[in-house]
Amino acid sequence: MTNRRIILEQRPVGAIDGTTTRLTDVELPVCGPDQALIRVGMLSIDPTIRTWMNDAPGYLPPIAIGDVVRSSGAGVVVESQSPRYEVGDVVTGFTNWQEWVLADADHRFTVIPKGLGLDLATVMNVLGATGVTAYFGLLDVGGLVPGDVVLVSGAAGATGSVVGQVARARGAKQVVGIAGGPAKCTEVVEDYGFDACLDYREPHLARRLHEACPEGIDLFFDNVGGEVLDAGLSNIALHGRIVLCGAISQYNAMERPPGIANTAMLIGRRGRMQGFIILDYASRFPEAQRELAAMVANGTLKHHEHLVHGLEQAPDALNLLFTGGNHGKTLVVVDETVQLD
Amino acid sequence: MTNRRIILEQRPVGAIDGTTTRLTDVELPVCGPDQALIRVGMLSIDPTIRTWMNDAPGYLPPIAIGDVVRSSGAGVVVESQSPRYEVGDVVTGFTNWQEWVLADADHRFTVIPKGLGLDLATVMNVLGATGVTAYFGLLDVGGLVPGDVVLVSGAAGATGSVVGQVARARGAKQVVGIAGGPAKCTEVVEDYGFDACLDYREPHLARRLHEACPEGIDLFFDNVGGEVLDAGLSNIALHGRIVLCGAISQYNAMERPPGIANTAMLIGRRGRMQGFIILDYASRFPEAQRELAAMVANGTLKHHEHLVHGLEQAPDALNLLFTGGNHGKTLVVVDETVQLD
Repeated sequence: MTNRRIILEQRPVGAIDGTTTRLTDVELPVCGPDQALIRVGMLSIDPTIRTWMNDAPGYLPPIAIGDVVRSSGAGVVVESQSPRYEVGDVVTGFTNWQEWVLADADHRFTVIPKGLGLDLATVMNVLGATGVTAYFGLLDVGGLVPGDVVLVSGAAGATGSVVGQVARARGAKQVVGIAGGPAKCTEVVEDYGFDACLDYREPHLARRLHEACPEGIDLFFDNVGGEVLDAGLSNIALHGRIVLCGAISQYNAMERPPGIANTAMLIGRRGRMQGFIILDYASRFPEAQRELAAMVANGTLKHHEHLVHGLEQAPDALNLLFTGGNHGKTLVVVDETVQLD
Repeated sequence: MTNRRIILEQRPVGAIDGTTTRLTDVELPVCGPDQALIRVGMLSIDPTIRTWMNDAPGYLPPIAIGDVVRSSGAGVVVESQSPRYEVGDVVTGFTNWQEWVLADADHRFTVIPKGLGLDLATVMNVLGATGVTAYFGLLDVGGLVPGDVVLVSGAAGATGSVVGQVARARGAKQVVGIAGGPAKCTEVVEDYGFDACLDYREPHLARRLHEACPEGIDLFFDNVGGEVLDAGLSNIALHGRIVLCGAISQYNAMERPPGIANTAMLIGRRGRMQGFIILDYASRFPEAQRELAAMVANGTLKHHEHLVHGLEQAPDALNLLFTGGNHGKTLVVVDETVQLD
């Protein structure tokens, strides 16, 4: 038996293509002492994967050429010589883009509690990195207070859609989204309950933001960077806070992007712009997951998963995030038999 | 008797010149009930004055065409019908660019305590807006902690030089400045005791910063904006903080500046960039002034004042801040007989 995996073949310039990665077979890993063998069921396709493919310093080392592509995912324990895992446990962690992975002391996974009453895709979306990123970014980094006017870019995306709904549940006065194209903007308002959503592909975004939020934006949760960030900066309210979660508009950039023109707005408005990485919150994930699971259960947190079938589809699935071709949280199903009870 | 004043004649494009302002005489204001008449002795020449000349929203309204140019300053009370002021009090506040000003309920001044043992120029510099800006920006906004690697742009300037010296006194591990030209860089190190100072006019500032601070910058107090801010951003340490105090490189800009390329560094480094306006700290000025006065007294806070004589020189004095032609805090002496006891 072999382990199919996707390795980084060469570093991409711009969007990844057929020359970036290669599907390859290696021997099935053997489960030794204090290890567990995990059958991968599903991969979480996140924009940050693209940043790991660059040979640039980041919050994690770049993926080395020839290494399996780093990725979050979920799987089931099929063999265990570790007291941390029982056969049948469904776990999440860095599965990477492959069919099998070994857990050991240096490479740990989190066991998903039994009896959640949610399917695996929902757990990977709302209770996974996506959901907790929304939760801690909004509440902890952004310091949401009731009455805030909240702006969310990438509002139709997996993280953005959760941000808006948690902001609403926690007493935001107004929740405005930014998304790409009329269909996504409609979804943001009708499915996710935002008060309004602006299409960044239309001109004069900064002016339209001013019309939508004439008293300014108290909290801007930005997933996009670039011109979208600039438009939000130019409309920041006194003591406004900008949460930098991602900059997806920049990850495929082939030239130096034009830069952010309005950082000096932070002076006059006494504003704060702050970045974060969700890995730093790992010890607090349960508090977010409790609240998010309760919101799913009581129907106040809507979510969509975009399932792509087959490990070999993972590179194309990653590109969907940049073209906007996905609808909700993008997940690659590697083995559909891996499910929660 | 008349009151000579400098009014805003037309809004400048780029640096101010002879067409921007006009010297004019108006009638001496008459001191009425609850008012005090102040003879202006000295004007504080600050970069922010240039920003008030633009017809753009800011933390204070733009100076209206035909109005006296707004400015901090100091003067002596020569007549008082207000219980707040006694004749002979030396006061600070918005004197504006003129020889006489009325204090009233809407336009208040702060009485400088007697017996400080400092001359008026020193008080205007170290205990004035300049010094308290350095103090609260570094300690409150920037949250300096002992062991921080601190970077200060505009390091030879009135605010920057105080920032570096307070950082040193409060236990910074390393204090690095950025200034314009070799003479200023030498002054920053030799007079103000910084560990090093980089000339932003030389190429490869970001790379030289990396060499000077290989483990990154914990706290960057930025007075300059633009490329200098970008170079600092690209060297920010994990959990680094950037204090946006000013953006003097942008105030005379005639075209849209190129923008800040490295804001996404704040994500991976979990950094924070925050602006402030010193007016918000007015109620806390005494705590800063006590510490700064003590540092002057014990010789640990060096300071230079650049005195320009004559009200009519105020516009040229303002331009000195942008050409780097000043040496320390720029003050215009309007009436040299106004002094502290």
